[in-house]
Order: sequence, then C-alpha cells, then structure tokens
Amino acid sequence: MSDSHAQSQHAGTKGHEGQADSAFALKGTILYSESPHQLTVVKDGYVICRQGICQGVYPCLPKQYQGILCVDYQDALIIPGMTDLHIHAPQFPYRGTSMDLELLEWLNTVTFPQEAKYRDADYARRAYQIFAQEMKKGATTSACIFGTMHVEATEILMDLMEETGIRAYVGKVNMDRNSPDILREESWESSIAHTRQWLEGTVGRYRHVKPILTPRFTPSCTDKLMEQLAVLRKEYHLPVQSHLSENLSEIQWVRELCPDAEGYGDTYDRYGMFGGSCPTIMAHCVYLTEKEIARMKEQQVFVAHCPESNMDLSSGIAPVRRYLEEGIPVGLGTDVAGGHHSSVLHQIGDAIGMSKLRWRLVDQSLKPLTLSEAFYMATMGGGAFFGKVGSFLPGYAFDAVVLTDQNFPRPYEFDPIRRLEQLIYLGDDRNLIGKYCSGKQIRL
Amino acid sequence: MSDSHAQSQHAGTKGHEGQADSAFALKGTILYSESPHQLTVVKDGYVICRQGICQGVYPCLPKQYQGILCVDYQDALIIPGMTDLHIHAPQFPYRGTSMDLELLEWLNTVTFPQEAKYRDADYARRAYQIFAQEMKKGATTSACIFGTMHVEATEILMDLMEETGIRAYVGKVNMDRNSPDILREESWESSIAHTRQWLEGTVGRYRHVKPILTPRFTPSCTDKLMEQLAVLRKEYHLPVQSHLSENLSEIQWVRELCPDAEGYGDTYDRYGMFGGSCPTIMAHCVYLTEKEIARMKEQQVFVAHCPESNMDLSSGIAPVRRYLEEGIPVGLGTDVAGGHHSSVLHQIGDAIGMSKLRWRLVDQSLKPLTLSEAFYMATMGGGAFFGKVGSFLPGYAFDAVVLTDQNFPRPYEFDPIRRLEQLIYLGDDRNLIGKYCSGKQIRL
Repeated sequence: MSDSHAQSQHAGTKGHEGQADSAFALKGTILYSESPHQLTVVKDGYVICRQGICQGVYPCLPKQYQGILCVDYQDALIIPGMTDLHIHAPQFPYRGTSMDLELLEWLNTVTFPQEAKYRDADYARRAYQIFAQEMKKGATTSACIFGTMHVEATEILMDLMEETGIRAYVGKVNMDRNSPDILREESWESSIAHTRQWLEGTVGRYRHVKPILTPRFTPSCTDKLMEQLAVLRKEYHLPVQSHLSENLSEIQWVRELCPDAEGYGDTYDRYGMFGGSCPTIMAHCVYLTEKEIARMKEQQVFVAHCPESNMDLSSGIAPVRRYLEEGIPVGLGTDVAGGHHSSVLHQIGDAIGMSKLRWRLVDQSLKPLTLSEAFYMATMGGGAFFGKVGSFLPGYAFDAVVLTDQNFPRPYEFDPIRRLEQLIYLGDDRNLIGKYCSGKQIRL
Repeated sequence: MSDSHAQSQHAGTKGHEGQADSAFALKGTILYSESPHQLTVVKDGYVICRQGICQGVYPCLPKQYQGILCVDYQDALIIPGMTDLHIHAPQFPYRGTSMDLELLEWLNTVTFPQEAKYRDADYARRAYQIFAQEMKKGATTSACIFGTMHVEATEILMDLMEETGIRAYVGKVNMDRNSPDILREESWESSIAHTRQWLEGTVGRYRHVKPILTPRFTPSCTDKLMEQLAVLRKEYHLPVQSHLSENLSEIQWVRELCPDAEGYGDTYDRYGMFGGSCPTIMAHCVYLTEKEIARMKEQQVFVAHCPESNMDLSSGIAPVRRYLEEGIPVGLGTDVAGGHHSSVLHQIGDAIGMSKLRWRLVDQSLKPLTLSEAFYMATMGGGAFFGKVGSFLPGYAFDAVVLTDQNFPRPYEFDPIRRLEQLIYLGDDRNLIGKYCSGKQIRL
C-alpha cells in the first residue's frame, strides 16, 4: 500500500506492498457520506480494509485489528473515491475547446468528426492511453464510459482501463441514423452484429471493466435498433447508459422523430431500456416531465447530473434537488467533453454553484444543494450504480482517495469540513497523494 | 529577462538580466486583443519591449531591432497579463469555504469577523504574505485590491504588493456603519482622519502601487462619510472602487438606507464618487436600472464583472454583453473570496459559462459572450482602468504572461486559439512559465 508521494511527504508513513486480500488500515482525517444529509468526519481516524471491503471507520484501532499494516497519512484527508457516471473517452482530447456551441451543432461540427478518427486503432490507442492515464491520476475510482461505435477501439479502451485498476463500465456506442457517413453504422443489423461481436470478446474478460449497452441517444438510434438492443440486454444481462432531455432543441427533435412515444423517456422505456430489471443511467435530465420523473423513480433510473456540461453547452440547469427528494438515484458526471474538467471533485463544486443559480434565476422552491448532498452524489449516490460503492460504511468496496492540502498555506487552522470544501473548489491532481480501488493501491 | 523555468523547458532560450529600459523581444505564439471582436494571433512572432512599453508584434524581427536580446519561448503562448479589477486581499485565506451563504449573511458571519483579525499587524503580515505570493505566481499583472479598514495592515499589504512588481491600486476600506464593533470605524470623522493618515503615508511612496479610495459599499458608509471621502478624492486626485447592485437583498437595504437617493448608483453619484473626472470601478452590477446604465455610460464607470462570485454567493448573472454594447468599460474581477479562484484566466471561462446560462435561463436577447470578448475584458477591458494596459498594440505597457501547454498531451495538433481556450478552461499556475510587468520580468 505504500505511496512514494505519501512516504516522502508524510514522515512516519509505514509503507508496505500488501495484497488486496490482507487487512490494512489507512490513518488520517476521514470524511464520508452515510446519506445525503450525513457527512461524517473522524479526525485522526482509521478506515479498515479486509479483502477489498471496508470494515468501517474507527477513532482508535479496534483490538481485533491491532498489528495489521497501517498507512499513516497523518494530516491528510481520506475520502471515498469518486464515481463518474458519465464520461466520453474519445472526447477527452478536445475538452475545454470549441466552447461556443450548443449540443446539436457541437455534435455535428466537432464531436462526430473527432469520434470518426477512432476507426483507426493506432489513433485510438494513442488517444485512449492519454485518457486512461488521466483517469488513473485523478480521484475517480468508478466510471461509466462511452467509447465510440468502433469495436476494436472500444476493446483497446477497455484494455487500457483495466490496466488502471479503476472500476469501469465501458460502452461501444450504437448509432445507426442522423450522423454523417463517417460515423454511422450501416444498419441496425450491422450495429447489433458488431455489438454482439464486441460482447463476445469482452464479457467476463476483465477484472475491473465490464461492458454496458450504449445507445448514443434516441436521435442516433432507429426504433428497430433500440428494440434489438433490448434483446441483447436480456440475453447478456447488461446495464444501459444513454442521454435524456439535455437540450431543448434535442427534445423537440425527439418529439418529431418519435411522434408515437409518450415523451423522450418513453423512447427508451417502451423497449425496456429504462431501469427496473435493467440498471440504467440517463445523463443530464435537465428538462424531465412529471411523468418521466414518476417513471424514473418507479424504475430507479439513475440520473447522471453533469452541471459543468450543462453550462458549457448552454443546456440549462437540472432540478437535481427535486430528483434527490423524489428518491431517484442521482450521481455526478463530468460528461467530458460536454464538460471540460475530468475531475468529479470539481463537479461537486459546479453542482452546488449551478444549483444556486437555478434557485436564484429559475425556481426558489428548490434550495441550493449543500456540500453534504453534492459530496454524497459524487460518492455514494453515483457509486450505488456499481453496488455497495462510495462510502466507508462497513461492507462497501474499499475505494479511497487521499488528499493533502499542504500546498494551501494558511494563516490559521481550518476544520476538516472547510479543508474538504477548499480542496473541492481549489484542488487539482497535485492534491491527490493516495488512491485505492477495492483495497488495491493505484500508483499515481 | 531570463526565466529559469523557461530556460530548462525551452532549449535555445537566450536568458539575460536586462534592464526594463533596454529593448528586448519575446518570441512565441502571440495572442492579444485589439478590440472585443478582434483577437489577433501571430504564430512564431516577436513582441517587442522598449523602456517598458510595447513596440508591437511582428511575424519577423524588424531591421531596427536586429541584435536586441530575444527570449525564445518557442512553442509557448505569449499573451498580455491579466487585470483583476476586484479582489479582497484579506479574504484570500478562506476562499472556497463557507460556500453556502448569500452576501449579507456571509459578510456578517464569515467576512467581518475574519477582516477584524487584520487589526493585528503580525497576523496581517502573515496572511498578506501568502496573498502577495499567490498574486506574484499567477497571471495577474494589474489589480485593484480591497484591504481592510486598518491603516497599518493596508500599508503592509501595499509594501508586500510593491515587492511583487505587479501594478496595483490598493484601498484602505471605509466603513462607519452596519457592521459589528470589531470591524467598524468609530465615526465618519475618525474614518476620514485614518484615511488621510494612510494617504499621507502612501501617496507617491511606491513604484507599482497606488492608493485608491474604497468606501466598502453604501450600507457600510454614512452619507457624511461618503461626502467627506469625495472631498479627499478631489484633494488627492484619487480613483474610487466600491460595490454596486450585487444582491437583491442588498439593493433593497440600500433603498431603505437612502430613501432620498435615485437608486443605488446615485448613492455614490450624488457625492461625485461615480466616474467622470473620478475614475471609478463598481464591482458586480448584476441588477442595474436603465438609469444607472445610462449614467455609467455617461460617466464611463468601470464594471468589474465577477462571474464566479456572482454564482458562489447566489447573486445572479450580470448582463455584461449589454454593458459592452453600451460602451460601458468592463473588466473582470475574481472578487476573492466572494469568488474562489484568484486567477483571472479562470474568470474568462466563468464569464462565458455564466453568460450562456443567462442566455438560456433569463434573456435570449443577449447572446453568450465569445472567447474574444471575454479575453478582451480580462486584458484590455479591465486594463484600461490603468491607462494603456492589456494589449500588445504599440504604446501599451509591456505586460506579458507566457503559458505552456506541454503538460496537456494531445493525440493531434491544436491551432493557437484552441490552445488558448484549453489553457483558459484547464490551466493552472503550472502552465505559467514567464511573466513581465512594464517590461520587467517577475520571477515565478
């Protein structure tokens, strides 16, 4: 578990090369969610891992753990790893550029031509190596990732993500209409055939990475394709990720494309691709109808709330407090390159900021998100898509990141919540000095 | 002019220890504003400095400059230094914390108790040293800075800012009402007496730093204080900085405090503290009336647009395109610690993002800001408060920052505009490898 950075910066750290299945403890100032309203703080505490599973947090090392290896991170903060519920790997290179477009124009002029490059496996490997390295270096320990429609490139992405040690769902994208020839599958038949080929090659192949069905969004998928994806879903017991109600023009377009559906959500729901026995993430959900909200609650469809993307693409601000109050599962997504930062920690601050503007400008009945609520979404909220992930409660996967704030000189002491808050708003990869996924250390 | 970072990263850089009054050139990819709509790019160009003044940008070194010293920054971007039109030095330590409050509650529970600490000169020195170092390390080359009401602490701040080499106006704050005893001047007489004492000690004392009159905001200043500050202003020929129409509760409060004024702007204007012969910056201006807009245009009052702060304190989004179109001078402000980032580069992205949300949620008649417009505000727009500052047009002060993006690995080449855009959205102090103010290199 030793971390060279931690050792050099934190005198007294006992490094070791333990296995994920042996018990060990991390010591430091520990913060984690127990619910949206409960952000627990244990100063100078111990969080204990056995066989990759968290055994809980203790102010003193309990008797039964005396003698286990302990990595002392001293004054650093130890928090659960972040879950990114929505990120597009092929869009990573051009994040933070061409920021003057709305969704549909951005797809056509920037994203589709860029994604078409991934038909070239060499390019895909070069680009995805950069992406995987960034994911490894960041605070994300679980991610739901869009690839492109290309089978080979998506397998390269899965290989590279497996090497990072991060838990990931990765999707080969399905798209058989409304995009240029260079980035459109020839027919629903070929889309399904390629998807089956991809699934045969990847289901069960990895330790950390699994395939997820990924119809791009309704405008990109014919009814027939959606119907046949649902057949594949049942056959392979697959989760699903897609987009829902991000942008007003997009919603209007879906209305025209699917006049017989009862709204955008129903274009997935009518094929059984909308939660229930089929764990599903819908990114954005900026403009849901009351019917869609009720149905997402019923079917426990996850919302991937992507605040920065929703600003960058002029989409709007999702009423995420409403979803939390309804009991709809909500996590955060970076939506790179709709959003520009690949850090979910950064999205915590953005989610809070956007919720303030929504409160001020749109609807004063929905109060701004609290730090506790937004931190919960980034960890336990999104983590739930992966099972017991995103907390230090006993029984959760042992995913932890260790943050130092020694590079923020201060004229007076901060309490742990203020330290966490400042790291969320001002921190970057330099602040990350330790990272563990299912108890296994990820070398930074 | 040598820069150890540049030398080590940029083979072939010719370092030298030239004086500000000798001519030299910087070579690299040069970007600068000529107007809000003209962002000029010269790849592998030369920007030339003589006696601290920019002599223009050239694709090749003109004959009359052959033989002058040339620092070759190779592939790096060279842009004008940033102007921060609004920042509170004493609030720097707690930026990015207590982010769940609106303006008036935040002032009372966080800011006033924190600012009261600066009555202790030792504390002020410790805290302001951290602030000045951060300003030195960042991309800001001109700043308008609020201190506190304390004369000694404000002089310490001015001493420390002078050492950075950055051009700055610094203000001792005036506040004689509506704050707790620990942070309120006893009377308008003592406020004026202390201000006079401070001015006597600081006018003409520094090379880079000048005093600026700083009534905190109307709720903190009695009519008599404002009237007497106007007398001081005339006597010493001083510029003015304050706050205007940031928050709806604040505006309502001013209405109650000054029932005889024709609005918030008039509470400054009626004493001659609102532009005209008195160069003035008003921070925020989120909710101006038509009358105030007309008057600010007439009097050429500068707007310090602080987009991140306006989100963080749930204030709203200023219609900054309107101000640009009216011909009101507009620059950007970080408003630390209303805003959390001390980087004006970061505010460029925030200004664009906020303008998108305003367009989407409030008023579709005002299109989102372009990169060119927001970059202009951060450089030439705000710089105008200091004179010919913020461009590489001939005759402007030679303020430059040099940015590398070598730490952004890319699978394909970007053009200079895309590189600048990505640095704005994703860069940090690691990307800054050179900084010059009035032709003098600032050691990073």
